[in-house]
Amino acid sequence: RLKLQQVLARPAFEKFILTLIALNAVTLGMETSNAIMAQTGNLLLYVDKIILAVFVLELVARMVADFRGFWKDPWRIFDFVIVSIALIPASGALAVLRAFRILRVLRLVSSVQAMRRVVSGLLSALPGMGSILLLLGLIFYVFAVISTKLFAASFPEWFGSIGESSYTLFQIMTLESWSMGIVRPVMAEFPYAWMLFVPFIIATAFTVLNLFIGVIVDAMQS
Amino acid sequence: RLKLQQVLARPAFEKFILTLIALNAVTLGMETSNAIMAQTGNLLLYVDKIILAVFVLELVARMVADFRGFWKDPWRIFDFVIVSIALIPASGALAVLRAFRILRVLRLVSSVQAMRRVVSGLLSALPGMGSILLLLGLIFYVFAVISTKLFAASFPEWFGSIGESSYTLFQIMTLESWSMGIVRPVMAEFPYAWMLFVPFIIATAFTVLNLFIGVIVDAMQS
Amino acid sequence: RLKLQQVLARPAFEKFILTLIALNAVTLGMETSNAIMAQTGNLLLYVDKIILAVFVLELVARMVADFRGFWKDPWRIFDFVIVSIALIPASGALAVLRAFRILRVLRLVSSVQAMRRVVSGLLSALPGMGSILLLLGLIFYVFAVISTKLFAASFPEWFGSIGESSYTLFQIMTLESWSMGIVRPVMAEFPYAWMLFVPFIIATAFTVLNLFIGVIVDAMQS
Amino acid sequence: RLKLQQVLARPAFEKFILTLIALNAVTLGMETSNAIMAQTGNLLLYVDKIILAVFVLELVARMVADFRGFWKDPWRIFDFVIVSIALIPASGALAVLRAFRILRVLRLVSSVQAMRRVVSGLLSALPGMGSILLLLGLIFYVFAVISTKLFAASFPEWFGSIGESSYTLFQIMTLESWSMGIVRPVMAEFPYAWMLFVPFIIATAFTVLNLFIGVIVDAMQS
Ligand code: NA
Ligand code: NA
Repeated sequence: RLKLQQVLARPAFEKFILTLIALNAVTLGMETSNAIMAQTGNLLLYVDKIILAVFVLELVARMVADFRGFWKDPWRIFDFVIVSIALIPASGALAVLRAFRILRVLRLVSSVQAMRRVVSGLLSALPGMGSILLLLGLIFYVFAVISTKLFAASFPEWFGSIGESSYTLFQIMTLESWSMGIVRPVMAEFPYAWMLFVPFIIATAFTVLNLFIGVIVDAMQS
Repeated sequence: RLKLQQVLARPAFEKFILTLIALNAVTLGMETSNAIMAQTGNLLLYVDKIILAVFVLELVARMVADFRGFWKDPWRIFDFVIVSIALIPASGALAVLRAFRILRVLRLVSSVQAMRRVVSGLLSALPGMGSILLLLGLIFYVFAVISTKLFAASFPEWFGSIGESSYTLFQIMTLESWSMGIVRPVMAEFPYAWMLFVPFIIATAFTVLNLFIGVIVDAMQS
Repeated sequence: RLKLQQVLARPAFEKFILTLIALNAVTLGMETSNAIMAQTGNLLLYVDKIILAVFVLELVARMVADFRGFWKDPWRIFDFVIVSIALIPASGALAVLRAFRILRVLRLVSSVQAMRRVVSGLLSALPGMGSILLLLGLIFYVFAVISTKLFAASFPEWFGSIGESSYTLFQIMTLESWSMGIVRPVMAEFPYAWMLFVPFIIATAFTVLNLFIGVIVDAMQS
Repeated sequence: RLKLQQVLARPAFEKFILTLIALNAVTLGMETSNAIMAQTGNLLLYVDKIILAVFVLELVARMVADFRGFWKDPWRIFDFVIVSIALIPASGALAVLRAFRILRVLRLVSSVQAMRRVVSGLLSALPGMGSILLLLGLIFYVFAVISTKLFAASFPEWFGSIGESSYTLFQIMTLESWSMGIVRPVMAEFPYAWMLFVPFIIATAFTVLNLFIGVIVDAMQS
């Protein structure tokens, strides 16, 4: 068991896994092309299965080597979830899962020290944002309920339910076609609709700006 | 009266109110769905009325406990306005107010210490921005008057009045469809229209950038 | 002459001018409405003429009081230009100048200390940006010449001349409809057009970001 | 050879080259106009050839003066590439290269000290971004493979191949028509498509924000 730990920690083994991840990225990319699939489809699927088998064996080996340590390390759990997706029989309603096998490429993040640090850095800013994210969620919920109440009957495609309103409000927050695409048509029927959407844009822009400032200040302190 | 103050300040009471706010958020959300309303509409409206009654009682109790303190605390006034909206008979021209009952959920902000601090932080940057907001307003007014004068006759939908021009300029400032949607059609008739709108975009982008810098610098000092 | 200087420097006189500017802002705004013009048009134009006369007299008085000082102060020259626009006989080809009389409202900036400071602050960042603005201009010129050469024949409306290409590139830089509106149609004919426009977007975004950083760093040092 | 170095280093020689670059910028710009070409086309092409000849001679002289130094200086290699483009016989498939002769104007960057410093400053931030750029590339690749797998059959124009999906994802990242133009049409067929694209927008916005913060922090330290 100690020997297994040593093998798993060897730089050569790490490189071997990295090479497999890169190779898998290429084969999964090639599988999107009908022309390539028609020619060498079987080979690609075969390589894919072998690499998956190696990944499964690696994870099992890591669990055997240090079971507790495995489940304490979020990166290992991340690997476990990603590899597991490919093991779910992807047929019928779950056929869509086949498309998500490429997520395995994200093992590159958990396997490379520098990448792990970047992602940790990105995520480290999140906890300090709890309050402001809650505020943003509250703003969304309030405006989603109001716009559903007011516009569901006239514009069911955009504001038919709280879910649809939230999506439309997210679009408006990103400023995508907010005026020509959404608010002007709504104003043709409800001339005062701008009194709802312009404050929404200003409020979310201001909140997101403060979210960004939080990230900037957080990044400067470290 | 002192006893009333003690009851209102109890953590258990605060939790009770927070639970009601959350419950009310859910019921008001469910009321947007016709399917749910058809099934349990009466129950939802009943719950809504009870919660509103509790909120009114709470506010009255707070006023009784400390009348002056109530009107000095902006958060209490905020609660008062939000709860009052639901008491206005929402029929006829004011039926639209029914949609705004969800604003009661914003009591979450005034009731939770952390949220209050975030919103105070957001608003604290505003006073220092008086001059730059006035400048932005001035830019808007000047360009709104000019574009109304020049384009009202040809493009009444976009530039028919100072109000409509201001809305269109706000859209242009957010860069939403400014060229393909507005300026190119205008340029088809007034080939030099870009000499008005491109400087407007640059001037507002620069002013808003400085507004943002003000917020950033303000946030860094604290 | 010394007495004239004293009168012009009096707070009461300053307030009087500020009131006239505000009043003029309102009358010029009202002049954009056909309904109001039909009713009280003559009165508005009359008030406008009187205020203009006062402004001219004020400028003349300031010149008389301190001729050299007048032409050394950029704010006075600014006032002079703004007031002069209204004196040009605005008929025929120059009728468009009538719309620019509202620029007089910008006298608010030159007359109020706080506004003057804000605008000075905004402009103070510009000199340090000479090199980066030149670089941005160079990028625009190079891409404008290339896209005119390549696409003028097929898309004369967007890339017919260096001027039209520059406008289109400005639109692309602001990300307005760059893909669905411009680049995808171009790619239908020139499949590799993205190799020109995607680098342009990245290069200008990066340059403008550095322009912004320059302003931020400049603002933080002061 | 030493004398050649002295001549090349003379301020007068530098000014001469700068003048030629500026002149060439003008002539290459004028060549985009059919009207001007019909009138003075031959003269422009003649001037263009002479300037190119001077540039070639200059580069040769610089190589003769200090061959090793030439190839060690990235700016000289930049000049070499830019001038070489104009020497490739631009006919047939390479005719498109004629449009890229304007790149010679970028010699302005390599010839002016201040410009060189700005560009060096811009590029200096890049090396520290290796990890985050790799992460961004990984996100793009993963989402490109998934969206090609899922949507290639229904929306071949947008997601037909990994290349087309990458372009569409770049468009979505810039928020250009992401909802009304792409995601809403996709959602008409795949109602849960937002579960792919909204996280993509948030993930890339967050990553690009961190890229920007890296540039800002880098700029503030120097
Ligand atoms: Na758009
Ligand atoms: Na946009």
